[in-house]
Amino acid sequence: MKKFIHEDFLLKTDYAKMLYHDYAKNQPIIDYHCHLPANELAEDKSFENITKLWIEGDHYKWRAMRALGIAEQFITGKATDEEKFQKWAETVPYTLRNPLYHWTHLELSRYFGIDELLTSENAGKIYEQCNLELNKPSFSSRSLVSRMNVKVVCTTDDPLDELSHHIKLSESDYPVQVLPTFRPDGLIDIEKVDFTDYLSALSKMTGISITNFESLGEAIQKRVDYFHENGCRLSDHGLPHAYGFTYTEKEVNQILSKRLGEKSISPQEIRQYKSAILHLLGQLYAEKNWVMQLHLGPIRDTNKAILTKIGINAGVDSIGDYAHAEHLASFLNGLNNSGSLPKTILYNSNPSDNEVFATMAGNFTGEAIKSKVQFGAAWWFLDQKDGIKDQLDVTSNMGLLSCSVGMLTDSRSFLSFPRHEYYRRVLCNMFGNDIKAGLLPNDMKWIGKIVEDITYNNAKEFFQFPSFVENLALKK
Amino acid sequence: MKKFIHEDFLLKTDYAKMLYHDYAKNQPIIDYHCHLPANELAEDKSFENITKLWIEGDHYKWRAMRALGIAEQFITGKATDEEKFQKWAETVPYTLRNPLYHWTHLELSRYFGIDELLTSENAGKIYEQCNLELNKPSFSSRSLVSRMNVKVVCTTDDPLDELSHHIKLSESDYPVQVLPTFRPDGLIDIEKVDFTDYLSALSKMTGISITNFESLGEAIQKRVDYFHENGCRLSDHGLPHAYGFTYTEKEVNQILSKRLGEKSISPQEIRQYKSAILHLLGQLYAEKNWVMQLHLGPIRDTNKAILTKIGINAGVDSIGDYAHAEHLASFLNGLNNSGSLPKTILYNSNPSDNEVFATMAGNFTGEAIKSKVQFGAAWWFLDQKDGIKDQLDVTSNMGLLSCSVGMLTDSRSFLSFPRHEYYRRVLCNMFGNDIKAGLLPNDMKWIGKIVEDITYNNAKEFFQFPSFVENLALKK
Amino acid sequence: MKKFIHEDFLLKTDYAKMLYHDYAKNQPIIDYHCHLPANELAEDKSFENITKLWIEGDHYKWRAMRALGIAEQFITGKATDEEKFQKWAETVPYTLRNPLYHWTHLELSRYFGIDELLTSENAGKIYEQCNLELNKPSFSSRSLVSRMNVKVVCTTDDPLDELSHHIKLSESDYPVQVLPTFRPDGLIDIEKVDFTDYLSALSKMTGISITNFESLGEAIQKRVDYFHENGCRLSDHGLPHAYGFTYTEKEVNQILSKRLGEKSISPQEIRQYKSAILHLLGQLYAEKNWVMQLHLGPIRDTNKAILTKIGINAGVDSIGDYAHAEHLASFLNGLNNSGSLPKTILYNSNPSDNEVFATMAGNFTGEAIKSKVQFGAAWWFLDQKDGIKDQLDVTSNMGLLSCSVGMLTDSRSFLSFPRHEYYRRVLCNMFGNDIKAGLLPNDMKWIGKIVEDITYNNAKEFFQFPSFVENLALKK
Repeated sequence: MKKFIHEDFLLKTDYAKMLYHDYAKNQPIIDYHCHLPANELAEDKSFENITKLWIEGDHYKWRAMRALGIAEQFITGKATDEEKFQKWAETVPYTLRNPLYHWTHLELSRYFGIDELLTSENAGKIYEQCNLELNKPSFSSRSLVSRMNVKVVCTTDDPLDELSHHIKLSESDYPVQVLPTFRPDGLIDIEKVDFTDYLSALSKMTGISITNFESLGEAIQKRVDYFHENGCRLSDHGLPHAYGFTYTEKEVNQILSKRLGEKSISPQEIRQYKSAILHLLGQLYAEKNWVMQLHLGPIRDTNKAILTKIGINAGVDSIGDYAHAEHLASFLNGLNNSGSLPKTILYNSNPSDNEVFATMAGNFTGEAIKSKVQFGAAWWFLDQKDGIKDQLDVTSNMGLLSCSVGMLTDSRSFLSFPRHEYYRRVLCNMFGNDIKAGLLPNDMKWIGKIVEDITYNNAKEFFQFPSFVENLALKK
Repeated sequence: MKKFIHEDFLLKTDYAKMLYHDYAKNQPIIDYHCHLPANELAEDKSFENITKLWIEGDHYKWRAMRALGIAEQFITGKATDEEKFQKWAETVPYTLRNPLYHWTHLELSRYFGIDELLTSENAGKIYEQCNLELNKPSFSSRSLVSRMNVKVVCTTDDPLDELSHHIKLSESDYPVQVLPTFRPDGLIDIEKVDFTDYLSALSKMTGISITNFESLGEAIQKRVDYFHENGCRLSDHGLPHAYGFTYTEKEVNQILSKRLGEKSISPQEIRQYKSAILHLLGQLYAEKNWVMQLHLGPIRDTNKAILTKIGINAGVDSIGDYAHAEHLASFLNGLNNSGSLPKTILYNSNPSDNEVFATMAGNFTGEAIKSKVQFGAAWWFLDQKDGIKDQLDVTSNMGLLSCSVGMLTDSRSFLSFPRHEYYRRVLCNMFGNDIKAGLLPNDMKWIGKIVEDITYNNAKEFFQFPSFVENLALKK
Repeated sequence: MKKFIHEDFLLKTDYAKMLYHDYAKNQPIIDYHCHLPANELAEDKSFENITKLWIEGDHYKWRAMRALGIAEQFITGKATDEEKFQKWAETVPYTLRNPLYHWTHLELSRYFGIDELLTSENAGKIYEQCNLELNKPSFSSRSLVSRMNVKVVCTTDDPLDELSHHIKLSESDYPVQVLPTFRPDGLIDIEKVDFTDYLSALSKMTGISITNFESLGEAIQKRVDYFHENGCRLSDHGLPHAYGFTYTEKEVNQILSKRLGEKSISPQEIRQYKSAILHLLGQLYAEKNWVMQLHLGPIRDTNKAILTKIGINAGVDSIGDYAHAEHLASFLNGLNNSGSLPKTILYNSNPSDNEVFATMAGNFTGEAIKSKVQFGAAWWFLDQKDGIKDQLDVTSNMGLLSCSVGMLTDSRSFLSFPRHEYYRRVLCNMFGNDIKAGLLPNDMKWIGKIVEDITYNNAKEFFQFPSFVENLALKK
């Protein structure tokens, strides 16, 4: 019987097959945004069993199991790892048409060579089979990444992180560049109870006494410098919407002063502070030629019972419906006006905002940069065949798909790199369909080049990661 | 010449045909939400002519006729029934690509065995042909429902309804269970002029003097108990958006007290009251293990001239664009936090909200319940091929389609049951396309089972209607 | 090798080919909304070179060039026209899947007979080839329009325009009717600095002293009369959203009085004034049986650096995400209630609003008028294959596609008329697919008639342009 995940999975036309096999398949991977734990890569962690590697921490799977009515004890609770695997296996056939169904079988095939469809019947056997594999050196965390032809991985890190794991990795002979990403939630969320503690820690780490917005900026500058020295070339922000409210320096100092004095601040003041700090951060990123990522739109932790029990990232977040256009225009224009708009990627959570985001990206450009502001790849709930196709279509119709920096995993899992394969198959299938329908000329060389650009070259050029820049320098 | 509505209508692949004919077609129907008048079923009403049965009260058809420029006299006015039918027939060919085109010919075929396409030319002949049929016993209101393999019909009823028609039906030998649904608009719309009258009537009916929120709750409890005894297992709410605003018991009592005293209340107070009463209702539903339906998002009665002339449900409502996510999250979380979130179905009016609703549904789950909060079937304007397909795709991508309770008619018409057939054809066609494209494994047994679940089994399990539960008890 | 833009471009089925070639292709064009400069038509302007005709002023192309990182000097700056053409040619292959890719080659083919794909390699040759053609009489501005089988062109004009160019054209033997459209931005934008100057000019032109809302109305009436005498049958408005706020006559007079006295007015007052003036304008349009066009939703001039440097319409506008339903309902209902709702076309900028706009259109109808309020054709960013298809699908599902007045160019370019061809191909392809899939009966005569209606007859009937009405009169 033909394998489900076969050589031409998702590829409908001969054009698509040619584009995938001749142009896309062997391109290296630049995973410019993910949530892999740098410490586990640094220590080259091994995994006791497939549950620990594959189910623990994977809120996509949790959500599906809960939707099927499986008891929490088998998801995040006290059941054994084998029981949890069994319950996940029982869930898989019910996930048909959900991205989990394809991801699951793609991951079993690519990492473990298992081409059977996972069900409750074969769960025990597959559990054993996977666990046997996990003993092999090719299943350590480092190997899981490096054997997927990955050149660069960008993790997501707190500005107060010492980056010791990244330094250790860079000093090792590990062929994958593992670079930090600057994610300063602690600096932005002024309304959180631990904000002042966070600033104290920043103050201590940098040796700068933070008394006003200016000294806060100086302290942040130090961390940006440190991250940059250690290979950071991106920042990341997760927000409901952009902040482009008006403020004066005086107002921001008063707000910060109130907050440092543990006085209460109003919603309006929170918005103003966030607008100011994000503007400041954008300027710092621009100076360093970093890429600013804005992940906008979700509504998080909607189920407080689960949040209390399990914590954040527990699978009770969903797609929000905030208005974005005016906020985004105001924020990006503010930076652009002061000549300090960094390269930017705008990711939306709600597909109804695709066109707003894609066209907003096109309003801000830079000479000699292909799509300086990019409409980001399909993210979170949208990271599936339809969502990816929609993002590609909207990017095409509203801008230049040819300039896109392509896919990323955005994942916490060491087994998620086949998502690049998945994206590439969807991409090649799309081009193939267009050629067959006469919507594109039958110019495989040109379209093949565009496929190579979107899957690797554009990202390499856009992010200017240290190794590539140095290699480039050597060649000259 | 091949019939337009032929055996394999909408079914493109052999897989689709097999799924439809072998798994979907013969499943019974549970129509868990409609607006059929219980009194007409109780009295087993017959219909004088096809206009009375098919056009009178059907605001979908009215809208299409008006869009073609047909004079109101031929729609809701003084023209004869034959003239009205003639005008509708004249309209039909102009409705191509509108769901009315398929519905019309599906209904003519399934109920009357007429496979001609309706036009102004054959209108007279078909008018006579239909009217002849209407004299037969198989065209009484009861027969129109029962001969479609319907097991359960849930009507939509006011809490003050005595349910005499439902009782009469349950005492008859009518094989279709006709159950009431609790639709308490009168309890929620505190801003309406007749609100206090409504509470007086409730007070009178229950013997409870309603002086504050607590006594209001006691009165409602009595009606919920009464509905439950008479087989009610669902409630229904039609709202622009959910209400999850904050309030205190004291505030709500003050608001109610003002309103009972015919003093004016503010928009903020209206929102608070609605949040409170909906929370209370949710709790009562949860106690009874009912399913709470929220139909959210339309903007109604936009054309006041038509409203004044013809009344509500006259075909001048449209899709709204309210923000939903925060309201919904707050409302559902409030109930969940107090351990009293009932099973819920979230229906959206605007397809741009599909992903918001589907992902919100997935945030609230229950052990041993398949998709405790469901993303509801395509509704109103979305109840057409594209809308149904979109709802199925979004349910699939954002949750577990396999756990969906499937379709309902939401109709005022005795001729609308072929919409279940229509949905089933779209569903099977979708699965067939996926199998053919290699997106799903060629496992007809499993996918056939899923089709059976979505078309019948899931609803049976989810709603726990009295007869099924009793049957279950008998079997054990 | 087969041409890229070949005879059956975009037409997938034999049905589609038949519909296009037998019914759509030879229909005349009524371009009922565009931004062609009447003066250039009046003087029958010739074009020095292809850059002047094709790239200058075309912000779609500018945007694409900027997205590729091309320096502004080659876009709107001091580079030579040949250099600019070279840069555009270099950009074209990177626009694959963007509408520019199809438009570019369709325009080169239809006007210049060039079927090569434009690239940086053949740019020099094609530049020369086009420029040679431009010397011919068939490439004057008038010829470029008339040779496309255009019957009517409606330009977009300020109420203060003397319409001398339109008069000159109407007095010439030019076979295309070039009619003005009333676009009164200057009357609506009360917050703009030059508002009072505008009213002074209006006052001077009409001889009416504008001291209050009533005299303002009298002055506007004069200009409406004048436009009507000169063949105007449409108005046009570009707004973020409709204005349906409440106001009294007294309030509006106070607001106007303040503004005329150069006193500041509040955002609330601005909204009230806009609601009042738009209501008044709607009434005047209704009296004249004009069609009111509302282009709603974009967010304009988001990049202030480009705005300052280049001005408006520079390619830094994008799709907005305003809430529309309540505004629209209130505004349209207000006019309808006073018996003065004109025929209206509602165009949305954000495709997420398609269903809101399409269903709102259906709420307001008129006897003996096919779709009195129309859901407008895909506009601006949506004027591409997917956007057009979506608009057709939503129109179909939510209303009567058969009554649609079809496509328009909305363009500033003399080379944009092939967009009608493009639309017709998409339209015929859609019908062809439906027939092949059994979603429509195989009735080529009826569907061919519908195609003829959508591409020409409906517009002819809806707009009642002077020449057609007179022709009609003559025939009787």
